[in-house]
Amino acid sequence: MAKEITSRAQDYSQWYNDLILKAGLADYSAVRGCMVIKPYGYALWENMRDALDKMFKDTGHVNAYFPLFVPKSLFEAEEKNAEGFAKECAVVTHYRLKADPDNKGKLIVDPEARLEEELVVRPTSEAIIWNTYKGWIQSYRDLPILVNQWANVVRWEMRTRLFLRTAEFLWQEGHTAHASKEEAIAETEQMLDVYADFAENWMALPVVKGVKTPNERFAGAEDTYCIEALMQDGKALQAGTSHFLGQNFAKAFDVKFSDKNNKLDYVWATSWGVSTRLIGALVMAHSDDDGLVLPPKIAPLQVVIVPIYKGEEQKAAIDAKVNELMKQLKAAGVSVKYDDNDAARPGWKFAEYEMKGVPVRIAMGARDLENNVAEVARRDTKEKMSLSIDGLADNVVKLLDEIQQNIYNRANAFRQENTREANTWDEFLKLLDEKAGFVSAHWDGTPETEEKIKELTKATIRCIPLNNKQEEGKCVLTGNTSKQRVLFARAY
Amino acid sequence: MAKEITSRAQDYSQWYNDLILKAGLADYSAVRGCMVIKPYGYALWENMRDALDKMFKDTGHVNAYFPLFVPKSLFEAEEKNAEGFAKECAVVTHYRLKADPDNKGKLIVDPEARLEEELVVRPTSEAIIWNTYKGWIQSYRDLPILVNQWANVVRWEMRTRLFLRTAEFLWQEGHTAHASKEEAIAETEQMLDVYADFAENWMALPVVKGVKTPNERFAGAEDTYCIEALMQDGKALQAGTSHFLGQNFAKAFDVKFSDKNNKLDYVWATSWGVSTRLIGALVMAHSDDDGLVLPPKIAPLQVVIVPIYKGEEQKAAIDAKVNELMKQLKAAGVSVKYDDNDAARPGWKFAEYEMKGVPVRIAMGARDLENNVAEVARRDTKEKMSLSIDGLADNVVKLLDEIQQNIYNRANAFRQENTREANTWDEFLKLLDEKAGFVSAHWDGTPETEEKIKELTKATIRCIPLNNKQEEGKCVLTGNTSKQRVLFARAY
Repeated sequence: MAKEITSRAQDYSQWYNDLILKAGLADYSAVRGCMVIKPYGYALWENMRDALDKMFKDTGHVNAYFPLFVPKSLFEAEEKNAEGFAKECAVVTHYRLKADPDNKGKLIVDPEARLEEELVVRPTSEAIIWNTYKGWIQSYRDLPILVNQWANVVRWEMRTRLFLRTAEFLWQEGHTAHASKEEAIAETEQMLDVYADFAENWMALPVVKGVKTPNERFAGAEDTYCIEALMQDGKALQAGTSHFLGQNFAKAFDVKFSDKNNKLDYVWATSWGVSTRLIGALVMAHSDDDGLVLPPKIAPLQVVIVPIYKGEEQKAAIDAKVNELMKQLKAAGVSVKYDDNDAARPGWKFAEYEMKGVPVRIAMGARDLENNVAEVARRDTKEKMSLSIDGLADNVVKLLDEIQQNIYNRANAFRQENTREANTWDEFLKLLDEKAGFVSAHWDGTPETEEKIKELTKATIRCIPLNNKQEEGKCVLTGNTSKQRVLFARAY
Repeated sequence: MAKEITSRAQDYSQWYNDLILKAGLADYSAVRGCMVIKPYGYALWENMRDALDKMFKDTGHVNAYFPLFVPKSLFEAEEKNAEGFAKECAVVTHYRLKADPDNKGKLIVDPEARLEEELVVRPTSEAIIWNTYKGWIQSYRDLPILVNQWANVVRWEMRTRLFLRTAEFLWQEGHTAHASKEEAIAETEQMLDVYADFAENWMALPVVKGVKTPNERFAGAEDTYCIEALMQDGKALQAGTSHFLGQNFAKAFDVKFSDKNNKLDYVWATSWGVSTRLIGALVMAHSDDDGLVLPPKIAPLQVVIVPIYKGEEQKAAIDAKVNELMKQLKAAGVSVKYDDNDAARPGWKFAEYEMKGVPVRIAMGARDLENNVAEVARRDTKEKMSLSIDGLADNVVKLLDEIQQNIYNRANAFRQENTREANTWDEFLKLLDEKAGFVSAHWDGTPETEEKIKELTKATIRCIPLNNKQEEGKCVLTGNTSKQRVLFARAY
């Protein structure tokens, strides 16, 4: 049977790993910190990617592709960005292997094939892209540039976890260029909204939109906007970021444009990205001890139909009904599979599709057929219903919508329950240790206090929520005056 | 004006480079041998990718993603494959940069961060994938595995050309695992058919399906099938390959399965791929001295409408007609753009869209409107027609089909004219030098003769066509007996 995963109560972290592996989302690989995204996990990523890609295109963006490698001299041009990523760069130094003279059948790096300049495997592409934009931009007529890239990037992280933190990951990175600061900020905010819309309406994942403190900003950004989600263990997860880069990269790469009055100025920039990390967020936010719970809108398979029968005659009768139902469901745009593989028993299949998080399972039995009904089970609540076969396709379509909404509502209720205010240091500590979740508390606004709180509690400021209520208060740590609460949490 | 490209007659190679740059398909980059795929080029690639991806899925394949890096010890496991690619491997040796103590603001590779084992940036993924399949395959029930990957790969080529040969390129690589030799060969052949279907019916590119000689096989394959196309300068271009890998990789990575009788055997393998090189083939096969000629089925933009008017009133009347037409075209699934940017003149726009290869251009003038007609220009023949606005959308849809077919027919006629038989060495040399194209000639079947012909003429055996006519003959070089003709050409 498939039910072999650790329960969340027993060991949340182990539950997560077990689930990723057993549901067939990913696998470990022979390369330190890198994973294999298995077909089921990749199908999920394709659905997420396609939905996002459409949203990017609907907001006027186009895709392009820039080199995997960044010459070291370009990489170091924007100093803060370089400093931020230098410690985790995979570096290509040679371009050839040769036969090992001492070891037949083995290869060694050919010392004669050393690159004149080392190449960094992109950890992010601002440098290579702004170096390219230099050649594309002369005047305001060349702006804005609204480009996105779907790509792999590499960050040599010391501690890795499937999807959440891997040395190589897949992502999209938008890189836009603008003639004014206002337009660039509006773009940064627009893309944050796109991410929040995607998280909430496709992934069923409620998020807080906010701004990072200077400590937590992207290296090279003037401002980092983010969406923050809450996982079932009460830890926060940064699900997407959108950066206002000011003129930092334009200055580093000398990218100027002449405005309508023929005045030269540096170009304004944004960048924004989400990655396969979102799959980790999805799993941690919704799934349970029986397996994945996937929102129908991004599930690789939305409906599975399992026949229950004895003998050919019963099977033939069920097949006929199922074919009709499949036709109707497909016409309604539902992805559906008929699993009539007779090598596995229905009970085994039920457990398997629960593990895989298929939102709706329909069991069609010979006796059901006599009564013109089928057993419909929803994955989110595990509720089973006997529904008439007449109008079943329509009802399944409605049920999929309901499941999508319910998964969101559940996650949203969980987040509301687990967002609490702390007004004293004792309350703050107590909430973090006993309840976890988001803790809304006053902070005196200094990086030193933020750092100290992190040292003492491992909690970080996840964000200063957008449109945050302004209220007088005292910093939970220092007692100094504060004008607003910020959201703290321990985080992935 | 946009008409600044070298003509084909003047310098075919320069024409190609000019066109790629001026049409906005790609740009050079700061990384040796790597290019930037610009938005227009990437949109073309997206259309090609999506059509191929659907064909792969329709034939039962699923996508997955494997690591970018291959540890050297895995890379060298399949000896022939390793030997074939060793000379062009980018190698990661370090995982960290640090501040240069002698040079403020600069970075150096941190000598303390040397990898224990070097990582090869994948030039192809058989090694990492078969090492993974080892964990996925125990019995015949786990087979077949029908997986494809869309990815970037790196081959450190010394001479590079935009799209045709770049150090990094985008491609797909299918990697399948089978329980029998017959099934693996059938898969290899099926995917060759998929490639030929795609080339002919989407890219309008006639291809010869064939098998490579042992000399030209993929490193590590038992047999390499290919599709070969002919460019306008008479050189051939390998447009896709499908490899029967036998049990070579299964043996190298010890991947065995137990069959229905519980007998252990090594797994049978195939791999197959096409890359962004296809864009080079597309350009070289169809385009002309005015710019790109794109088959409508993969053109990023199929129809452009340009208004010709004086004053607001005329513009408003044209707008109304155009909006109606756009609605009809979009409803018919046609991608269409209305370019009413008043900063550019119609003549400039005409040249620009010719450069970009938009299949149909509609000019809508105030006087035309009075006569209820519009001027329709097709890019492939440059023919202009005055067509009634009544039923125009339907006629444009038909015209797009006609253009698709015409581009194919033209390329096919060109290939037929430029496929010639040579029966003596003199004829062979004369054809290669004076006519180029495919030369069909007898070959004695030995690698030595093949090598000698290549040395003497730079022509290679492109393939032994599938279902090749068997006929007695004498090798053009050696006069030794031969049972069939093979296709020679100089090639990209």
